[in-house]
Order: sequence, then structure tokens, then C-alpha cells
Amino acid sequence: MNNSFANARVLITGGLGFIGSNLARRLVELGSEVTVVDSLIPDYGGNLYNVEDIRDRIQINVSDVRDSHSLRHLVQGKDYLFNLAGQTSHLDSMLNPMADLEINCQAQLSILETCRAGNPKIKIVFASTRQIYGRPGQLPVPETHPLNPVDVNGINKMAGEQYHLLYNKVHGIAATALRLTNTIGPRMRIKDARQTFLGLWVRQLLEGKPISVWGGKQLRDFTDVEDAVDAFLMAAANPLTNGQVYNLGGSEVIDLAAVAKLMVEVNGSGSYELREFPADRRAIDIGDYYADFSKIRSELNWEPKRTIRQTIEKTLSYFRRSLSHYL
Amino acid sequence: MNNSFANARVLITGGLGFIGSNLARRLVELGSEVTVVDSLIPDYGGNLYNVEDIRDRIQINVSDVRDSHSLRHLVQGKDYLFNLAGQTSHLDSMLNPMADLEINCQAQLSILETCRAGNPKIKIVFASTRQIYGRPGQLPVPETHPLNPVDVNGINKMAGEQYHLLYNKVHGIAATALRLTNTIGPRMRIKDARQTFLGLWVRQLLEGKPISVWGGKQLRDFTDVEDAVDAFLMAAANPLTNGQVYNLGGSEVIDLAAVAKLMVEVNGSGSYELREFPADRRAIDIGDYYADFSKIRSELNWEPKRTIRQTIEKTLSYFRRSLSHYL
Repeated sequence: MNNSFANARVLITGGLGFIGSNLARRLVELGSEVTVVDSLIPDYGGNLYNVEDIRDRIQINVSDVRDSHSLRHLVQGKDYLFNLAGQTSHLDSMLNPMADLEINCQAQLSILETCRAGNPKIKIVFASTRQIYGRPGQLPVPETHPLNPVDVNGINKMAGEQYHLLYNKVHGIAATALRLTNTIGPRMRIKDARQTFLGLWVRQLLEGKPISVWGGKQLRDFTDVEDAVDAFLMAAANPLTNGQVYNLGGSEVIDLAAVAKLMVEVNGSGSYELREFPADRRAIDIGDYYADFSKIRSELNWEPKRTIRQTIEKTLSYFRRSLSHYL
Repeated sequence: MNNSFANARVLITGGLGFIGSNLARRLVELGSEVTVVDSLIPDYGGNLYNVEDIRDRIQINVSDVRDSHSLRHLVQGKDYLFNLAGQTSHLDSMLNPMADLEINCQAQLSILETCRAGNPKIKIVFASTRQIYGRPGQLPVPETHPLNPVDVNGINKMAGEQYHLLYNKVHGIAATALRLTNTIGPRMRIKDARQTFLGLWVRQLLEGKPISVWGGKQLRDFTDVEDAVDAFLMAAANPLTNGQVYNLGGSEVIDLAAVAKLMVEVNGSGSYELREFPADRRAIDIGDYYADFSKIRSELNWEPKRTIRQTIEKTLSYFRRSLSHYL
């Protein structure tokens, strides 16, 4: 697989964000020519510090995926497009649904049209989300589970994913979608819960405040960002994935109170508080979720390699060193 | 039910179109104060002649549902919103996907936001489509069938429908979605196949040309427009429908060659030709489709009352009288 990326020309949308920047770093190690595009919208995940150590080995293009003219230039001549730009906050999508639509829906269609017109041989891997399943009707959740999104973000991400699959089928643009669950690791957004509640928990813990856990009994799975990067590369390198969707998942299923407890334990100090769900979040909560990731395991031999404890150790260690760059 | 509409203030988006104008006529008979909004985009279904006979009994507002400012004014004080504005051509959605997204996706979210801000007590009935199911995995197709749209139009209509259900659930905006199958009757677009292939068939027949049937073996169901109007009114009048989706269907299941044969027979002259599917249409064809409409039958006591022969007779008779207004 690694041969696929030596000297490959790669574009990463959302490339200054959490997963995008970790992917950029790995691709640089593999010898790719990496261009990252990111809007650096303050409420999103982009952060120049995420690429501080590889800044002179990548091209950074600050622009918005809603800007189809800059996109047309950027996709030219690329072998791979890792399409990770997105608005991730479920709550923000309910407060400002049109911005979510523009980024998660309209810009995705624009990106695909741009590839169709200017670079139809590109291979795209799209970052989709478990959010499109809504409240699970069965556990673990397979890719065949009905799509019943419970918030505007879920509806728009669903449409964004479907455009990719459609362009693969009808227009022959090679595209694969990965449905991510909670991804955690170094470089995630920790300023607030806009990307993942785990980010805010890290901040609370490192600032010596109690972790606020809403509910606590909800079951979840977590993917280490390095495992997620593995999956993106495997999907990109393998043409058998074209037109397919794959769930990612975690090595363990764990309830949120237990995650908070584990974080306090790994940190060596701190505390957490169980709280009632606020009404605006309860309205869009999905209850228990964990993925059936047997499809990607059997077809691509992917599986999560890191335990949640290892991921938490690495994550806390990273943010302890670099906290000021993320607040 | 009829009491629900006497003196009711009603807004119909797409109200100069096929179903919208038939609905407007019925509501005028029931004593409603009807405002129709329509963009009169030439490739869509709006046609002023559709309301020629009721023109002095309705308010006509020519504007585009993408224009949120005019919408804000129009939804004020309305009791019901029949939300029928849409781009309907599957092929056009593949050629100009962004326009389809703007109308079927973005404008729908804008309409719902406008209602939430300015008239949260309004009741909305949304015209959804069987296209969102994609190629049926079972026949007849129930509402629980997975959503696997096969074209951009299907993806955007799916998102548009889901926004309505979400705003019902989370924001308490009363909304019901009807998933229409092929609707036929007087005032449909017959200039071309953008609204329904049946429209073009009517034109070909009345102009003395052979009806072009692509394939011919595909099974379909057809809803008479008056039956569709019944369903919109029943859904609007009954609060138990809030947050629900209902399939409409037809009184018969029939293959396309048999429909063409019946049209020629009812017309008393003419012919039809079976043709190979063009590649661009084959790529987005859904094969056989007919709806399971037992949900709306059992919950609202709706069922198709007109036979397909009656509908064809009435339709041909209408367009024979008024052909020049539709070319």
C-alpha cells in the first residue's frame, strides 16, 4: 500500500484540521506531495499549529471549499483527494442550518463537479459520519442500517456522502466513503465540543476542571486518529473500494462515564461530574452507538490497533505539551 | 375535512404548476384564501394558463422559493403551506446538479427556517417523491424501504423531505411528507418529459406522432391528480399526520407499453414505438416501481378513486381543448 503514495500528488480538504493534518503528516512520511486546503474558519477544526512540524514539506492553501474557482485550480493534476472539510457540530447545524448545508452539501457537490470537469481520474475518499444513521435500531450498526439522521448536520452529511457514491456510479469518479465514529487523538479541537465532546473533556481535565459528562450511560466506540489515517490510506489505495461505504469502529465499546473515569485515571488527577442533558442537545441525541466494522475488516484487513487507554495517554501527553496552541 | 379549509389562508409553492394549480382550484371551491407562489422558470411546471379560470379568485405571486425575503412575507399569517415547488427532471439534475440542489434542498431548508422564525403554527404538506427509494429492493415499496436515490434529484429531494420531518420533530413545525409516484392529469407539463414522460406521450399522441416508449416492460403505478389533491388535503387537515411520510399509489399496476397502448386506444388513433433506453437515462433508471400505500389507506382512508383509463380520457380531453397553451 505504501508504494501507492510515494510521489503521489495528494489534496486534503480540511487538511489543517484534526484528521486531515494527521493524514498529511503520514503522507509526507510516505513521500507524497501534499497540498492541504483549509478555510481556517474559527469555529471549525483548522489550526496552523497542527502542521507546525511539517510546514515546509507541504503546500498550504487557505481557501474555502465553497469557493469553486480555487477548487478548480487545486484539484488539477492530483492523484488523490482526501475530502475531509466539513462542519462537524451537530448543535451549530441546528442554529445555523444554512452554513452547514453550504459546506456539507453544496460544497461537496461542487467538489465532485469540479473533479468531473477537470480531473475525472482522481480517487476520492470522503469522510462521512455515523451521524447519518440517527438513533440505532440495532447494535452494532452495520452499513446496511437505515439512514435516519436526527439533525441538520446528519441530513447534509448523508446527502454529501450520497453525491460521492452517485458520481462514482454514474460518472465513474472513483470515490469511497468512510463513516467515522468518534475519532480521538492529538490535534483534535479541544477548545469546545464542536468537533467531539472528548475534545472539551481533554481541555477541562488539563485545566484542572471537572469533566462535564451529559448522561453517562451512553455506549460509544472510539477510533484512534492513527487507525483512522490507516483506513483512509487503505481505502485510497484499493480500487475495490470504489463506490463503497465502510464503517470505522473502535477496539472497545464503553460508556461515557467509564471514558471520563479512565481519562482521570490516566491523567493521574482530576474529576468528572454526571449532568442532565440540556434540552437542545437531548432533542438531537442518538443514544447508544457502536459500529459493526466487519466489512472493512474483511475487505481491507483494517482494524483498530490502539486501545482506548493508549489513545488517551498519547492524547493527554500531546495536549499537555501544546495546550496553549489549542485554546 | 372540508371545514378545515373554509376561509383558511393557504400558500401553495409551485402553485402555477401541475399539482399546485389543481390543488388551488379545489381550495378555492372549498372557500380558502389561496396565494400561489411560482417562479415560472420555463423548464419547470409553472404555467399561468393553469389558473386561467380561477385567476380572479387567487393571489398570484411570481417569485422564486430560493428568495428567502419574499418567502418571509408570503408565509406570514398562513394556516397551511402546500410545499410543491421543485425541480422534477432527473436528467436535468444530472446536467445541472447545483440548480437542483438550490431548489430541492437549500430552498426547502430556507422555507422551514422562515416558518420557524415567522409562522411556527403553520401546517406544511411537502411533495416528496418515490425517486428517493431508488431501485426497489421489494415490491410494492413501503415507506420503510431504504432510501437509495440513483440521481442528484433523488438525493436532494431526500434531504428536502428529511428537513421537513426534522423540523417537525425538533422544532414542532407541523409537517407531513407525501411520496408521490407518477401523477397524471390535466395541467401537467406536456412540452417535454421534464415533469413526467407521460406528459410528452400526451403531446406526441395529440400531435399525431408515435409515442416513444423507452423499454416498455417497466411496471409503474399512476395517481390521478384529483386523487393526489385529495391526499394533500387529508394530510393537511389531520394533525395525526404530523411528522409522518405517506406513499401515494395508483389503482392499477401496469407496464409502460400497456399504458401507451391504452392511450392510443382511448385517443382513437395513434401509435407507439418501443425504443432502447439512451445511456444517460439508463444510468439513472429505477426499473419496476409501484407503491405500497396501505399506510395512508389505513390511517387517512385515502385511496385512488379513478381508474387509469378514466384519467387518460380526462387528460386527453383537456389537452385536446387547450394544446396551444402547453407547447
